[in-house]
Amino acid sequence: MSDQAPWITYRPELRVLDCTIRDGGLINKHQFTDELVRAVYETCIAAGIDYMELGYKNSSRLFPKDEFGDWRHCDEDDINRVVGDHNAAETGLKLTAMADAEKSDWKEQIVPANESVLDMIRVAFYAHQVSEAAQMIEHCHELGYETMANLMAVSNITENEVDTVLDTIKSTPAGTMVIVDSFGHLYREQIEMLYKKYTKALEGTGKEIGIHAHNNQQLAFANTIESIILGANRADATMLGLGRGAGNCPMELLLGFLRNPKFKLRPIIQLLQDHIEPLQETVEWGALIPYNITGQLNLHPRHAIQLRASDEATEYVKFYDQIIGDG
Amino acid sequence: MSDQAPWITYRPELRVLDCTIRDGGLINKHQFTDELVRAVYETCIAAGIDYMELGYKNSSRLFPKDEFGDWRHCDEDDINRVVGDHNAAETGLKLTAMADAEKSDWKEQIVPANESVLDMIRVAFYAHQVSEAAQMIEHCHELGYETMANLMAVSNITENEVDTVLDTIKSTPAGTMVIVDSFGHLYREQIEMLYKKYTKALEGTGKEIGIHAHNNQQLAFANTIESIILGANRADATMLGLGRGAGNCPMELLLGFLRNPKFKLRPIIQLLQDHIEPLQETVEWGALIPYNITGQLNLHPRHAIQLRASDEATEYVKFYDQIIGDG
Repeated sequence: MSDQAPWITYRPELRVLDCTIRDGGLINKHQFTDELVRAVYETCIAAGIDYMELGYKNSSRLFPKDEFGDWRHCDEDDINRVVGDHNAAETGLKLTAMADAEKSDWKEQIVPANESVLDMIRVAFYAHQVSEAAQMIEHCHELGYETMANLMAVSNITENEVDTVLDTIKSTPAGTMVIVDSFGHLYREQIEMLYKKYTKALEGTGKEIGIHAHNNQQLAFANTIESIILGANRADATMLGLGRGAGNCPMELLLGFLRNPKFKLRPIIQLLQDHIEPLQETVEWGALIPYNITGQLNLHPRHAIQLRASDEATEYVKFYDQIIGDG
Repeated sequence: MSDQAPWITYRPELRVLDCTIRDGGLINKHQFTDELVRAVYETCIAAGIDYMELGYKNSSRLFPKDEFGDWRHCDEDDINRVVGDHNAAETGLKLTAMADAEKSDWKEQIVPANESVLDMIRVAFYAHQVSEAAQMIEHCHELGYETMANLMAVSNITENEVDTVLDTIKSTPAGTMVIVDSFGHLYREQIEMLYKKYTKALEGTGKEIGIHAHNNQQLAFANTIESIILGANRADATMLGLGRGAGNCPMELLLGFLRNPKFKLRPIIQLLQDHIEPLQETVEWGALIPYNITGQLNLHPRHAIQLRASDEATEYVKFYDQIIGDG
């Protein structure tokens, strides 16, 4: 049957992770209201989502508290203020936070899992940081957390470097290795190549493959679908695609694609209407022209973000000429 | 080589068709200024695009001239006013218009090809109109035009019906049969199924397969890529995705994907900056929440279009409940 119309059946082992607050906070320095974070949290539960990422466990030395909001650091007191009544077993939702290599005081910031409502720590790193990432994963595992390894900006390194990272992560206790298309550059054939590479390298370890896609070329949802079709069992998405620059795979599209009846679309639509779309009055994200350009060219979106914040926000040709000239 | 990194090489036989004015005109009753149409035309030439679709050859009885702009009817005098100096051989650009079954007075409206700057007529039809479509294709062919057959709303009919259409089109002189996802409903596995079905049915005829995708689920570009990877050699796109409802595959993304050096992105960016993005002040298109919903549910976007034009434009939950209730 599944060969005939696979798009109307489902894999029960597939898990969806909401990273609206964590990724979206990169736009506004994580200055979200408690009300908004709580609304996303309650929506995740109502919609049957498996994980919600509350923010970063990153250093307050590097991200001062007078400039950055609580969800850049995810101090336990702040987490408890908003979702301290959380019960993963009752709600079906696990909470997670991300720690960046070199940006997190992870030895101090991360408390034992039995003292936190967090169930998982995701470790984000660039290829050259893989040794610290492996230590972080080991540390978090020993503290009792589930872990994921997020190798960022994979479109920007050689296959040889990817192989080395996979070889290092293979021997860690990370439960999942995530394909992260930070620049929103990858086309589906490249997703397929990476999926097969990750799978082959981690064969026999029981690790899952995840997908975290950005929308610079309007491919975040498509590349997420592609990864799922290939066999990825962990998928990231955000409400209305909220996220830095072009944003992420939209949760409302992903849940429409998944056929597991435990997922409910209506609570998501309610959240978009009441809380997320109104954010567009103060923060900008989406697959705008300058993000199309940086995505195509396999560049970090930072120059496009700067353009949109400048008084030349629609000078696309000038931007293109500068970017091409820099190349 | 092509098995190793096919995304950096190209197929010279691939042809790109711009349908910005034709599809975009469904938003504003084709009331574009001559200046805009001319700007798109000049951009198509500068960017190396193969075909530009100027509008519809549809009936002025059904679409009165006091209500609808010139590009709904594409009278030869109006075409000549704006692009009468056109030379396909010199510019590399062929001009085309679309005629809808039952909506076109095609026996009167379409003049012999040697009396027109048009090189091609595309015939759009629903499955139940295939007999008239076959007559229209035959007629246009006899008048000297290249022809394409565009079976609309293919997501909404049975495979048996698709087979019957393909069997009818097979014996016509149509050069291309286009996969048209009018509702923006199809996921990539369904695109693959249809591509294989179309290809098998038309085997040995020399007909090409085309793709015309809508963006209700942010999949227009992805599904266009998918079709191209499978072997489709005719791809439709519009500038900034301009088109009814959620819009179409964006030309600026498609040209970034194609590696044929004859295609140039910079003139497109100039057009978007000067002419297309400014249109957003008066017309709306894009993958907005209500289009996500109708796309997922395999529905015509008309109810979503009505919603956006109403004073309840952001009442998404109410809209969702009504749509689900109707189902």
